[in-house]
Amino acid sequence: MNSSKLLDKAVHQFASLPGVGRKTALKFVLHMLKKNRGDVNTFIQSIIDLKEQIKECKRCHNISDGELCEICSNPKRDLSTICVVENIKDILSIEATEQYKGLYHVLGGIISPMDGIGPTDLHINSLVERLEKENIKEIFFALSATIEGDTTGYYIFKKMKNKENLVISTIAKGISIGNDLEYTDELTLGRSIANRVQFSFNE
Amino acid sequence: MNSSKLLDKAVHQFASLPGVGRKTALKFVLHMLKKNRGDVNTFIQSIIDLKEQIKECKRCHNISDGELCEICSNPKRDLSTICVVENIKDILSIEATEQYKGLYHVLGGIISPMDGIGPTDLHINSLVERLEKENIKEIFFALSATIEGDTTGYYIFKKMKNKENLVISTIAKGISIGNDLEYTDELTLGRSIANRVQFSFNE
Repeated sequence: MNSSKLLDKAVHQFASLPGVGRKTALKFVLHMLKKNRGDVNTFIQSIIDLKEQIKECKRCHNISDGELCEICSNPKRDLSTICVVENIKDILSIEATEQYKGLYHVLGGIISPMDGIGPTDLHINSLVERLEKENIKEIFFALSATIEGDTTGYYIFKKMKNKENLVISTIAKGISIGNDLEYTDELTLGRSIANRVQFSFNE
Repeated sequence: MNSSKLLDKAVHQFASLPGVGRKTALKFVLHMLKKNRGDVNTFIQSIIDLKEQIKECKRCHNISDGELCEICSNPKRDLSTICVVENIKDILSIEATEQYKGLYHVLGGIISPMDGIGPTDLHINSLVERLEKENIKEIFFALSATIEGDTTGYYIFKKMKNKENLVISTIAKGISIGNDLEYTDELTLGRSIANRVQFSFNE
């Protein structure tokens, strides 16, 4: 209970952000109070614009400012490879690595019977359509290394496997770079031994 | 650079909050994107209300929803004691302890020649006026244990000291509860020895 109900309400709202407690929310609100009116308006407008104007890319379901997202409409991207991801955050993580230059396809989730999410809830049909329409040479799964991720990958793989000449790949699973073997869990270590790769100085 | 300029703008705005980097800002923005329109409107409205409707208490300069803040207008508070603090955050910290039941007076800063803040920039005159008008028995300084805090306290103390029967107190300075002596700085330890108090089982 603070001395102002308006303050309390604002603190409550900021505390609804992920990972923000009441103390941090209060810090945010006092910061807002100190900001001049123009800056606060810019802050608010950026949220309104985000909610009102942001679209879904009609090709890959990424968030987008127009019909096609910046990645789909970028002529420098490799149009023959699709990376299948669970959500938008995964695209941001992959883009940050600067190791991938192809297109994406956002499923909007993964198959998870526990959460009531089946294949029809995901953008799998539109992925199959893309394979018919576009000239795709490789489909690359970058899904979580969980049972749900594997199930989703396998479900899509079964739908794809009668396509001729289509390369189907998945992200490598193994020990994290910088990690000690001693602290790596047995499953990961086992998998990274089974999938060992030829040594090269480039890696 | 994300795939959407609208997203980038919103991330940039959230990253202006204190202690928030781009990764956390992105987490906040994606959370906003997932929220339904009504919730986002409530969030935005709480910030607008805060900026437009919040007032300064005309007695103690605390933030307030009306003419007087919740503390000044609470009949259960001890009207004969004023706690002098630097800013609103200090009131919130003191209120959280539930150890103080009097009124407050927010100076709006402390005397700091380095930052160009002199006594006339602070709510010191209105504090002197309150001592004339209200029936104050004790004035209690809860200022930072810094040179600036001490200077400010001393400046006000000089202005008050010819008031008869006015008790002038300051928060106790000493070692933090739960802290080892070994890790307490010399100045604090020295001060807490000089100001040692009689042992009692209540403490």
